[in-house]
Amino acid sequence: MCTAISDNSGRHLFGRTLDLEYSLSEQAVITPRGFELNFLREPPLTRHLAIIGIAHVFGGIPLYYDAANEAGLAAAGLNFGGSAVYSEPSSSTHNIASFELIPWVLGQCKSVGEAAELLKGTSIIADSVDASLPATPLHWLIADRTGAIAVEPIADGLKIREDPFGVLTNEPPLDYHLTNVKNYTSLNATPPKNTLCPDVKLEPYSRGMGAIGLPGDLSSSSRFVRAIFAKSHTLPEPEQNAAINRFFRIMDTVSVPRGCIITDEGKAVSTVYVSCADTETATYYFSTYGNRSIHSLRLSDANLDSSEIFAETI
Amino acid sequence: MCTAISDNSGRHLFGRTLDLEYSLSEQAVITPRGFELNFLREPPLTRHLAIIGIAHVFGGIPLYYDAANEAGLAAAGLNFGGSAVYSEPSSSTHNIASFELIPWVLGQCKSVGEAAELLKGTSIIADSVDASLPATPLHWLIADRTGAIAVEPIADGLKIREDPFGVLTNEPPLDYHLTNVKNYTSLNATPPKNTLCPDVKLEPYSRGMGAIGLPGDLSSSSRFVRAIFAKSHTLPEPEQNAAINRFFRIMDTVSVPRGCIITDEGKAVSTVYVSCADTETATYYFSTYGNRSIHSLRLSDANLDSSEIFAETI
Amino acid sequence: MCTAISDNSGRHLFGRTLDLEYSLSEQAVITPRGFELNFLREPPLTRHLAIIGIAHVFGGIPLYYDAANEAGLAAAGLNFGGSAVYSEPSSSTHNIASFELIPWVLGQCKSVGEAAELLKGTSIIADSVDASLPATPLHWLIADRTGAIAVEPIADGLKIREDPFGVLTNEPPLDYHLTNVKNYTSLNATPPKNTLCPDVKLEPYSRGMGAIGLPGDLSSSSRFVRAIFAKSHTLPEPEQNAAINRFFRIMDTVSVPRGCIITDEGKAVSTVYVSCADTETATYYFSTYGNRSIHSLRLSDANLDSSEIFAETI
Amino acid sequence: MCTAISDNSGRHLFGRTLDLEYSLSEQAVITPRGFELNFLREPPLTRHLAIIGIAHVFGGIPLYYDAANEAGLAAAGLNFGGSAVYSEPSSSTHNIASFELIPWVLGQCKSVGEAAELLKGTSIIADSVDASLPATPLHWLIADRTGAIAVEPIADGLKIREDPFGVLTNEPPLDYHLTNVKNYTSLNATPPKNTLCPDVKLEPYSRGMGAIGLPGDLSSSSRFVRAIFAKSHTLPEPEQNAAINRFFRIMDTVSVPRGCIITDEGKAVSTVYVSCADTETATYYFSTYGNRSIHSLRLSDANLDSSEIFAETI
Repeated sequence: MCTAISDNSGRHLFGRTLDLEYSLSEQAVITPRGFELNFLREPPLTRHLAIIGIAHVFGGIPLYYDAANEAGLAAAGLNFGGSAVYSEPSSSTHNIASFELIPWVLGQCKSVGEAAELLKGTSIIADSVDASLPATPLHWLIADRTGAIAVEPIADGLKIREDPFGVLTNEPPLDYHLTNVKNYTSLNATPPKNTLCPDVKLEPYSRGMGAIGLPGDLSSSSRFVRAIFAKSHTLPEPEQNAAINRFFRIMDTVSVPRGCIITDEGKAVSTVYVSCADTETATYYFSTYGNRSIHSLRLSDANLDSSEIFAETI
Repeated sequence: MCTAISDNSGRHLFGRTLDLEYSLSEQAVITPRGFELNFLREPPLTRHLAIIGIAHVFGGIPLYYDAANEAGLAAAGLNFGGSAVYSEPSSSTHNIASFELIPWVLGQCKSVGEAAELLKGTSIIADSVDASLPATPLHWLIADRTGAIAVEPIADGLKIREDPFGVLTNEPPLDYHLTNVKNYTSLNATPPKNTLCPDVKLEPYSRGMGAIGLPGDLSSSSRFVRAIFAKSHTLPEPEQNAAINRFFRIMDTVSVPRGCIITDEGKAVSTVYVSCADTETATYYFSTYGNRSIHSLRLSDANLDSSEIFAETI
Repeated sequence: MCTAISDNSGRHLFGRTLDLEYSLSEQAVITPRGFELNFLREPPLTRHLAIIGIAHVFGGIPLYYDAANEAGLAAAGLNFGGSAVYSEPSSSTHNIASFELIPWVLGQCKSVGEAAELLKGTSIIADSVDASLPATPLHWLIADRTGAIAVEPIADGLKIREDPFGVLTNEPPLDYHLTNVKNYTSLNATPPKNTLCPDVKLEPYSRGMGAIGLPGDLSSSSRFVRAIFAKSHTLPEPEQNAAINRFFRIMDTVSVPRGCIITDEGKAVSTVYVSCADTETATYYFSTYGNRSIHSLRLSDANLDSSEIFAETI
Repeated sequence: MCTAISDNSGRHLFGRTLDLEYSLSEQAVITPRGFELNFLREPPLTRHLAIIGIAHVFGGIPLYYDAANEAGLAAAGLNFGGSAVYSEPSSSTHNIASFELIPWVLGQCKSVGEAAELLKGTSIIADSVDASLPATPLHWLIADRTGAIAVEPIADGLKIREDPFGVLTNEPPLDYHLTNVKNYTSLNATPPKNTLCPDVKLEPYSRGMGAIGLPGDLSSSSRFVRAIFAKSHTLPEPEQNAAINRFFRIMDTVSVPRGCIITDEGKAVSTVYVSCADTETATYYFSTYGNRSIHSLRLSDANLDSSEIFAETI
């Protein structure tokens, strides 16, 4: 349960909500160029692009939920529980576990094009960060200021495709959402015209009626459509602070007040955090469910040639 | 549970569905000019306009569900169970029971204007056809080829107002429906334009997508909107048989397959019959749930100067 | 633009609507066992199962829109304009044009299982009935009283899969509809319970409110959902005439009043005909847009050992 | 364009969004007991209950959008442009302009009951704060920890009625919304049950699907329903800061990202501010469109026996 957005209306901003029924002490984490990135089945990257993002630090290793690198490439992993199918390791490809994908890509790639190329030669395998647990089922939105791709490991293989909306939520695979959104093409921010019954005068009774039909629930398909509507109709803000604020306002429309989703097990889901990376300055902005103020961390706040991660609780 | 429509797209056609969980042996009934119309609290009409319609004949008296008279005025009574409030008898007005309203109006009035005038001086009282039963709660659509009015006995008094759509269903009072329909003004029979996200090409995947958002359930408010959409977008048919067929096709969109509504008591509702009066020729067309073929009866089929009703089972 | 339904609630009934902006003089056509069935790239079937259905007869050959055979297997072809991809002829399979598929399957197969088996070894190729025209893009619902399959020629190949609802409409492929229908699982014919705000008493104002949310437009996805709702909630009718009538009542909920869909070219679509095969007795029932009465033709009305087709205009 | 909510799930919290296409330099304003409250047609209140709220200060006088008093009573005025009808001044009642209503009520009344009583003897007249401008058309939500009333000046007179949801938005009058919300009674935060087609297994593909059908647009009727859903399903938070945060999270679901509503004149609407009064401590919390952090002002921060207002820009 998450929504990721890549927005190019002004500066490139990339971020996401994390919607869960629990929290894992997320931190804003900088991985400098000299921190050795280890992989279960690949040689380590001893020197790589610096990365900033939100992660759960486990055994000293940042497990990134979403991040950006110093070259302006960003990525977010989102729950994909019904469709994710991981591969068997293959001798003809790189073999990367789902929890390793973000450092694998952001450590090496400077653009969406490079990421797509790297992933074409990569198998995503079912290894888990903790051998006693199954691998987290994920799909990813990867974007830079030129565009976005969705990366989805499904039964048919690893699908890498352009995401023209720069939006990703959860199940089903992107193909469904790209069709489903066509059910909402006539929504608008302006007042509706009367084509129902032109013979009778029908005036709107309220502002905002041009978007009647926009779904308001918190399912993945409704958040997908709502994110597109909000991203497409919220006016660009040239000023930097206003642009960041705009991004969080868009995210508010897909966020989960605690309890508005109850899981099968009776647990209350909420939007644990919202993040927003300005990929040009490698600055990470974030707020949490309990603290709606926006805080930030800048990649340049850390010594990028260090070999130690820098982490602060959000 | 019923839908009444007055349509002026060509000849004036007026009809309704009757949606119930039971049937009362409805008949097509002609009341000729000489049949004495008796009223509980008013003097009889011994000579009056001839009437044709669908009725339950009770003790020799036609209790019309809907009817038209030889002058081209038509009326239908529809269930109004949550809002109908009848008056105490008043010495300053005529006093008419709800089951008497159709003969009271159609026996005397030649136009919607005359009907409105007569009803302004009429109280609708709570007398029942059978003293052991409560009066049926009803409201009415009354129309001729110039327009339609809705007549609603509510707590505030007897409300007589123009119905610009020529459509009536059930609860709540018409005011609600006239506002609610504004939620659907942008629906159309043509393909939708993409205003959701103009930067991305969004082609319809199907014909008919311009009306996405039209409600498909059988509640009174959804039938009200659907009847307007179908009436407004189904093309006029100049030829007489095709025009009648068109009316029944519109009615199909608001009809109830038996079981698609289950009452609180667990009973299955269906559209018991559909009627359509051509008010110019005083011809009544009808079909029943079990027999979808259209049959008809013409006012001129009976001797209009008789003093006996003419009834045939539909 | 069409809807096909296979219903096993009582006797097995199978039928469809044909929704078009024109009509091609459809006929009810019996193809007896001795009428030679020719194929462009396969040897003729000189002796085969007898077939009854609705067809356009072209050059003496019935081009079936939908049909049933004497063994109780039925099939309907529906428009699939955005996704149908036909194969190149293959030497390792049978090669059948889309317009040949219904006689190819119904001439030889006695059950859905046999049909699925035959089609696994069949390529559907792009040959057209008229060399100057492109092949009609189609997908098919094939059913008997044990179940239904959808047969879809898409870019990934010929997909043959169980259709648990026994419903098929048009674009997108069935996979989309099987997911989309999950957005409507809570719809019901009974009155809704108040879970929105249990602290406030919220009584329905109308019957039928348990199905609020059912889409009422005529797009393929909305017809798919509406057909399921109507099929699932319209009560079975044990008596034969009532069962046939029930099928047509269900079809009314997905039929198109002429003009309620306008094509890109400005043409008005209507439901040209509705058909319903009783596969046990091989009787075909049908009505047309202009004549809503139900007519029928029985396979046993013709000499099944003849070599001539029997056709009557519907 | 505004949404007001009175919430009694824990401490009594009362607040609103102000949605406009412009801003009038709103301030958080404390009116102490000794500040003389003048009225155009009533004698001044020289000594009164202290008031805190958000106001535009005009000529030294606070024009409150929403406020609470030291006794725990709160009120908010919301746009009511299509229905507000003000009275002629009457010698048998008090005569109060719409912009005077909040100080008139909060200066004198300690409870919803007292407010209702006072307003029964009050006419709301069409005087404007600036003689060159028409009176702002408003209706009001007035609440304390025991309940809420809506106060609506309509053509039929001044309607004062209980508001069982503690929610108010804009047009049409409350009656419409109280009926309309019944269209959404079956929405839930828990996963949906399959009643559409029980014969086929239909599992949700996403969390949150129990609320499918919740409207997501920004019209007054959709915000009314969405506010009820969010208020009813967001879990109560016993801890004070969390309870305030919860209130703002609920308000996020009805807030307007700048541009998601465009007026007839082409102007972009946004949620200028969100306020939340804790009526027990007379503390006012607020955030603005540009600054989502929550700030606060406490009635006890000012000298309540002063004769000067205390104002700070929000």
